Amino acid sequence: MKERPIKEFEFIDRLRALCGETPENLALCDDVACITPVKDHDWVISVDAIQKGRHFRDGDDPEIVARRLVGSAVSDLVAKGAQPHGCLMAFGRDKSWDDQWLNLFAEAFAREINHYNMALWGGDTVLGHGFAALTVHGLIPSGKIIRRSGANIGDDVYVTGTIGDGYLSRIAREEQAIEMVTHSMDAYACPRPPFAFSHHLIDIATASIDISDGLAADLDHICRNSSCGIEVFVDQIPLSSSGMAYAKRNGVEALIIGGDDYQTAFTAAPTNREMLAMAAQSTNTRLTRIGKVCLEGSECVFKSSDGSALHLEARGFEHF
Amino acid sequence: MKERPIKEFEFIDRLRALCGETPENLALCDDVACITPVKDHDWVISVDAIQKGRHFRDGDDPEIVARRLVGSAVSDLVAKGAQPHGCLMAFGRDKSWDDQWLNLFAEAFAREINHYNMALWGGDTVLGHGFAALTVHGLIPSGKIIRRSGANIGDDVYVTGTIGDGYLSRIAREEQAIEMVTHSMDAYACPRPPFAFSHHLIDIATASIDISDGLAADLDHICRNSSCGIEVFVDQIPLSSSGMAYAKRNGVEALIIGGDDYQTAFTAAPTNREMLAMAAQSTNTRLTRIGKVCLEGSECVFKSSDGSALHLEARGFEHF
Repeated sequence: MKERPIKEFEFIDRLRALCGETPENLALCDDVACITPVKDHDWVISVDAIQKGRHFRDGDDPEIVARRLVGSAVSDLVAKGAQPHGCLMAFGRDKSWDDQWLNLFAEAFAREINHYNMALWGGDTVLGHGFAALTVHGLIPSGKIIRRSGANIGDDVYVTGTIGDGYLSRIAREEQAIEMVTHSMDAYACPRPPFAFSHHLIDIATASIDISDGLAADLDHICRNSSCGIEVFVDQIPLSSSGMAYAKRNGVEALIIGGDDYQTAFTAAPTNREMLAMAAQSTNTRLTRIGKVCLEGSECVFKSSDGSALHLEARGFEHF
Repeated sequence: MKERPIKEFEFIDRLRALCGETPENLALCDDVACITPVKDHDWVISVDAIQKGRHFRDGDDPEIVARRLVGSAVSDLVAKGAQPHGCLMAFGRDKSWDDQWLNLFAEAFAREINHYNMALWGGDTVLGHGFAALTVHGLIPSGKIIRRSGANIGDDVYVTGTIGDGYLSRIAREEQAIEMVTHSMDAYACPRPPFAFSHHLIDIATASIDISDGLAADLDHICRNSSCGIEVFVDQIPLSSSGMAYAKRNGVEALIIGGDDYQTAFTAAPTNREMLAMAAQSTNTRLTRIGKVCLEGSECVFKSSDGSALHLEARGFEHF
């Protein structure tokens, strides 16, 4: 980790004290991390960036920024079946972030990476306009990575957790109705990818993706990469109590294109139903079978209980 | 690499076409990269971030942004003796960056990573306020990483290239006197860490660091981490013709605290002088012995030819 004067130095010192030294991070004082090979394992690597005003609001608590940064990045590893191990953070300090803000951020960041058994391996801190990017590294047994491209015709389609709560919480916050944000819908402020469950997917899931852009857009990615169609039964999509109340009034569309779920969607052969149910139970993970992989089409179709297909205005969150 | 609609999709497509598919990047279409262990080697990892208005100017060419992003990140690997191998980019697109800008950036970025034999392994693209962060991965024989902490009393101190050109070019650009930027001083627009030379430092350099904050600040890091003092002879610091002209008028201080050099400073036992000279010659690298590691002090002292110590107002660039 770069070591520089004034506030930057204190911030890095704080992170170092909170996140600890590991063999890989060279005590966070050598500009680089150094990792040794782990026998019979590959490294899975992903990076996620968040920007003030785009992925979090100007007034959001530093805890929320830290949780969203770590949760969104870990979500990609988890969906691939990898176990999070270490990360490097690029941090663009906003001018409005004072010492107290930075301290609270450092504390929440340390808690979050600890939650996922990750170490801080390094980073770079600059004066920016409120951004952060986290590069995460996870371990997976050699050759076992679960890609987007392996879905087979006839596979079941599953999702973990509930869908749409990140969207609901984001909207409530945008409308300054934070007091309306219930615990069940606060996936926005505290993304919780199913990391205890996901390594059970190795050798079982044929294709997998994290739901960040929205269920529709992300299942489309599986369709495109696996050259298949997917049919989802709308009334089987798992909703929280807030989600059900919203869907009753406004329909389910916004929930499945809203994004920010950070859950895992995957496909698996019907022969694995029992094994998956056991894995979900043993890790206390909500797991729902929501559809089938079918021959027809090259995108995901959402079927209502009357058999009609839902028309979606958009497929997911536009990031650019 | 995340795959998202509209411009983001086109930008990623362009990068994919220019940077190519590799076994590690899963054809840049799976949110993650996957790397397998390389026998008897460690991975050295570093991240560097740049922000519009801070590390490059609003009107800078996309080529300059790409070169500074890649050069500054690779510089850390090079200083540790590692061979660059692959990278992941977090990209926060500024609103002012149109399709043409993005295209030129992608082309320059592909050229730069190719120059260092690096592949693009993944990334994340968001709408931001003009930032980019690059996480670079390099290979080094197991246990051979060159740290900041190994300098011994009596070691020689070396630098590659010339010092102060990045500063001179930055200043000329800030004063809108770009026409005054000579080729010799354009380390700002085109950082060129000595990556062909640096792997010769393995088993020779006792401590090493890249000069990004400024020669003074970065040698201080070696002092602090190696628990030693360093004495640099000012008239031995290698300057370009522009640097010499500047120093004649204004003295050398700004050149040694200005930063943006992206050269390597290292220490080595005097018994290795001949071997280092040969390595420099064979890789066409300018290499200069500028001082000694000494017992006294815990920071770098700059000695003029009359024996007096230079007083520095600051030690380096403040990033935060």
